[in-house]
Amino acid sequence: MTILRKRENPLTYKNNKSNYKELKDVLPMKIAITGKGGVGKTTFAGVLSKVLAEDGYGVLAVDADPDANLPMALGIPEEKLSSITPLSEIKDIIAKRTEAVPGVFGQMFKLNPKVDDIPEKYCIEHDGIKLLVMGTVKAGGSGCICPEHAFLRALMQHLLLTPQEALIMDMEAGIEHLGRATADCVDAFIVVAEPGQRSIQTLKTIKKLALDIGIQKIFVVGNKIRTNEEKSFIINACENISILGFLPYDAALIEADRQGKTPFNKGECYTDEVRAIKDKILNLINN
Amino acid sequence: MTILRKRENPLTYKNNKSNYKELKDVLPMKIAITGKGGVGKTTFAGVLSKVLAEDGYGVLAVDADPDANLPMALGIPEEKLSSITPLSEIKDIIAKRTEAVPGVFGQMFKLNPKVDDIPEKYCIEHDGIKLLVMGTVKAGGSGCICPEHAFLRALMQHLLLTPQEALIMDMEAGIEHLGRATADCVDAFIVVAEPGQRSIQTLKTIKKLALDIGIQKIFVVGNKIRTNEEKSFIINACENISILGFLPYDAALIEADRQGKTPFNKGECYTDEVRAIKDKILNLINN
Repeated sequence: MTILRKRENPLTYKNNKSNYKELKDVLPMKIAITGKGGVGKTTFAGVLSKVLAEDGYGVLAVDADPDANLPMALGIPEEKLSSITPLSEIKDIIAKRTEAVPGVFGQMFKLNPKVDDIPEKYCIEHDGIKLLVMGTVKAGGSGCICPEHAFLRALMQHLLLTPQEALIMDMEAGIEHLGRATADCVDAFIVVAEPGQRSIQTLKTIKKLALDIGIQKIFVVGNKIRTNEEKSFIINACENISILGFLPYDAALIEADRQGKTPFNKGECYTDEVRAIKDKILNLINN
Repeated sequence: MTILRKRENPLTYKNNKSNYKELKDVLPMKIAITGKGGVGKTTFAGVLSKVLAEDGYGVLAVDADPDANLPMALGIPEEKLSSITPLSEIKDIIAKRTEAVPGVFGQMFKLNPKVDDIPEKYCIEHDGIKLLVMGTVKAGGSGCICPEHAFLRALMQHLLLTPQEALIMDMEAGIEHLGRATADCVDAFIVVAEPGQRSIQTLKTIKKLALDIGIQKIFVVGNKIRTNEEKSFIINACENISILGFLPYDAALIEADRQGKTPFNKGECYTDEVRAIKDKILNLINN
């Protein structure tokens, strides 16, 4: 996979597996995974990236949550973690290109910085998935992460994907990223929702705000489902929002998190359900 | 309870209950509840506010999460919700006082706006608890909520509490509020943690960033505990961070959330455990 290249000069696609031929006519996709804090966005984003990669997709996974751990969800080994350079650690480059002063809270900055050389330099690759990390707050009182969001937004807007490629953005909890329009380049939002009023309230807020930034396709994935009653609760609450599928509440995933391991292929049927959801997404994008 | 008054002219304390006499020598407290998204901050903040109020404390509960629902956790009835004016809806006042232009992303604004008339005007009261809501993102692409954070921070820094009063701030998920130093006025952070690596990682990041903004007292509340093994996991992970107590995983709380009801006095022992934690906090602050 190559990213951020010009369409007229595509580089060779290197991750092709057995089903490359079937995939070559499939449209590329840019998806943002969003939802209330703690509903399971990062777990889903990680496993979705993995099942796309096993299908031969070239995946660019973007950790856009300053408090998430997509590398862990992707199963990136400890020794490789130190080679990740989050965007927040190239503050001097961001500062230069956004013209923002690092560590200053509430300032003017450019919303269209130059970004086209960034992904190749700062991605790491693991098992056919490229990963880019926005990064975190490095010091208390050091200010907001608005410049990083503006930088990431510009980066995502410049992305050109070929048919066998997918962008999966794991967004920060809640809704401020929608005010910032960080993911306004994507084709669809997948909102992860658990059976609870507050999660549904976040889903509805996201739907409204997503329309404001021009995202028309909003899908739901129900997560942590233990009973048919919980499933019905989500179906009823979603009204006219399409549901892609339901993922089970599975103690094996909690155990995987406790051990710091990837949830991919853990538990009874979580990963299989994500595979089914992935097929639905491909159908929705290609039909 | 009155808030934001001058110390030399305190108004009468109106929420005194049976144990007022015992409370009058007790120090006031300002606490921020924080942690990874979805660990149960709002549920804990709501129930802690309720148990303080039943002890005769005058409580100011602040919903500082643009995606939370502290009013629901406090059991504020539907018909009262419409009378809440979030800070985000007095944009004109905030704009005037922070000198920020509403809807503009990445701009200069004043970090020390005039705030002393705000709480009395925009608090609502329910069952002895006053509630102030920071508010939410009103439109996609409308910008960040940095001005609201700066305004809230100034507001909190101006708060003067008398001995029988408590400030409970329910912070947004994750760690950006620490970059913004929104809660740098508090005496202590209570970090809610569930048994998982990612929740513990957030706890450790919060501890480090809190020290940067001068908050020395960091306590942990373990939440969603189902087994002794999970309890031990949190004890081992916390190392030298004091643990105030453990709250059970209780399906009754999930059911309360699904029904949009307060978790106070729901489930088997959650609220009792919060009462025990509240006693520990009072001891820690007064000894």
